[in-house]
Amino acid sequence: MSNSAGIVSAQRATFDTPLVFRSGAVLPSYELVYETYGTLNDAKSNAILICHALSGNHHVAGRYANDPENVGWWDNMVGPGKPVDTGKFFVIGLNNLGGCHGSTGPSSLNPETGQPYGTGFPVVTVEDWVESQARLADRLGIKQFAAVMGGSLGGMQALQWSLSFPERVRHVLVIAAAPHLTAENIAFNDVARNAILTDPDFHGGNFYQHGVVPTRGLRLARMLGHITYLSDDAMADKFGRSLRSGKLGYNYGIEFEIESYLRYQGDKFAAYFDANTYLLMTKALDYFDPARACDDNLDKAFADARADFLVVSFTTDWRFAPERSREIVSALLHNRRNVSYAEISSAHGHDSFLMQHEHYHNVMRVYLERIATEFSA
Amino acid sequence: MSNSAGIVSAQRATFDTPLVFRSGAVLPSYELVYETYGTLNDAKSNAILICHALSGNHHVAGRYANDPENVGWWDNMVGPGKPVDTGKFFVIGLNNLGGCHGSTGPSSLNPETGQPYGTGFPVVTVEDWVESQARLADRLGIKQFAAVMGGSLGGMQALQWSLSFPERVRHVLVIAAAPHLTAENIAFNDVARNAILTDPDFHGGNFYQHGVVPTRGLRLARMLGHITYLSDDAMADKFGRSLRSGKLGYNYGIEFEIESYLRYQGDKFAAYFDANTYLLMTKALDYFDPARACDDNLDKAFADARADFLVVSFTTDWRFAPERSREIVSALLHNRRNVSYAEISSAHGHDSFLMQHEHYHNVMRVYLERIATEFSA
Repeated sequence: MSNSAGIVSAQRATFDTPLVFRSGAVLPSYELVYETYGTLNDAKSNAILICHALSGNHHVAGRYANDPENVGWWDNMVGPGKPVDTGKFFVIGLNNLGGCHGSTGPSSLNPETGQPYGTGFPVVTVEDWVESQARLADRLGIKQFAAVMGGSLGGMQALQWSLSFPERVRHVLVIAAAPHLTAENIAFNDVARNAILTDPDFHGGNFYQHGVVPTRGLRLARMLGHITYLSDDAMADKFGRSLRSGKLGYNYGIEFEIESYLRYQGDKFAAYFDANTYLLMTKALDYFDPARACDDNLDKAFADARADFLVVSFTTDWRFAPERSREIVSALLHNRRNVSYAEISSAHGHDSFLMQHEHYHNVMRVYLERIATEFSA
Repeated sequence: MSNSAGIVSAQRATFDTPLVFRSGAVLPSYELVYETYGTLNDAKSNAILICHALSGNHHVAGRYANDPENVGWWDNMVGPGKPVDTGKFFVIGLNNLGGCHGSTGPSSLNPETGQPYGTGFPVVTVEDWVESQARLADRLGIKQFAAVMGGSLGGMQALQWSLSFPERVRHVLVIAAAPHLTAENIAFNDVARNAILTDPDFHGGNFYQHGVVPTRGLRLARMLGHITYLSDDAMADKFGRSLRSGKLGYNYGIEFEIESYLRYQGDKFAAYFDANTYLLMTKALDYFDPARACDDNLDKAFADARADFLVVSFTTDWRFAPERSREIVSALLHNRRNVSYAEISSAHGHDSFLMQHEHYHNVMRVYLERIATEFSA
């Protein structure tokens, strides 16, 4: 516990300047919930923004006084003496706009109607998130982040920072991400969305008013998600063909351990995650494609980037395979950016980015120690 | 059309000897629907049994007089002058027990109750199918097949023939199959099953009596299935990130071409396929594991096999990857079986086994020509 961020508490920022989304939709005002760890130095030059992935939130590290079991989702990465050393950095985690952990999202009350936004909440893009995050930076007086970082969809936000606000981010750390989703990635998202959209309890997104939750759809979406987060090998090692009861049941109950695991994960997720947020998050993933506006030329897309980059991928990640990270690296190199790239041998697939892994954490530590020398010097 | 099997018609065989399933369940009587192409020789030595995969049926080749658009699912493989040359071979296709294309299955009326079997239909294993197929062979007077062949789940049945009835099959052709499912394979099946099982229109399997069909679940199951039948590359080539309307819609309708394709496939499938059959088929896949009874030692499992084997895999098949076929080859070689193995370069993933592909079809043709010399000599 000595290297834990310790007891933390969430904060809240309200923004009353209307936010215009990529879709053209406008949100007159919104709130972002966030946490910070460490101390902002006088020059305000030691701030790191951590962007979360599909089901993440602002609780990145530490624990709550009234809920000590609830440890932050990246607590192994962020804390005193950890790779993202809160003894050196001022670290910010926030819940993305459209989320379901406190920031304004589909389950929030729309002040204009007094009802939850539901599917009336604007479809959010990675660009919109970065815009909303920049306002939080303004609020905290941070002109330039020492780093913006994240894994998966979080890595896409970090990338987008270097495009939307090239001068406001010194380093971008992109982990287990891709420059855009493939058709297969979109296909998985589409199946997950359809599971939710066709659940009779979804009620066109207005299930709140019906006092129900599209549990079936959320459960399926999460079960499917978990398959893509793990690797074939990791699943084989962890579950193989082990039977729950030791023998075949010849029925449709749980027979294999992997089934038990998936259903447990599905049930757990469906009990707390908002279905509309799930839809939004998968759409943001589908839409992210900085090259689209540049004739599908990723080199062109990064022409204005000014940051230095660390790109990290994992050998068994088949969702966003190392090849996808190398596309990013290649485009950055063609723009003469400083890029470090690490391809980490890990058995745990896409989920590797969340795990304790010595080589991976050392790569992160060394890179972040170098960043720390820039502002402490 | 000159090398088509031409106009064909289905036949029906009734079996009144009770069939005891692996599960212990008993079916007092059952019907199998089947088609044949070509002519059985006097020695009855030129018969080939073709086993179908998850959604296949008995209509392997040719077309129906009253439905000429309905061409058999493996028509590119089976016909006069085709790799499975119906000028030389007597070819049998059947709908598996538990199917929904005419053979007794969950949607058939249970003579004891006058109601559809529903989930009361026994859970079928690959071993049970082979047993039921052997009875059809008896009925047709076929003591030994020149070959039993199939792709995917059909390949597993072909393998099982060499174990259940070593003396009744001269050659076994195993295409795009595996000696058992991995945890990841089972996981995909489990998500598909759960989509059906939790569809409110499933009614515990007795939806027939309610006049509804669990369309939502079947649709999701099929969409998901299609992702695993294709390769990432094939999807990228065929659909990429193309948008249906040319621009983003920022809503939950169909935006990307891949979404359009998946939903079309899902809708088409849900309109004709029986949900209980889908469940049975996926369970048969999950259960298939000849090594289980032999301390998970596949070498031991094949100890009694007497056939010669052709094993074929496809480079981009990630559902049953080439490594899985090589496990089969290795176990057969350890038992000193004659094994030919071909790993075909194809971009089309698991679905490759159904496609017209010159190299693949040449491999099949050459192997089958060799078989033909055995009985014509």
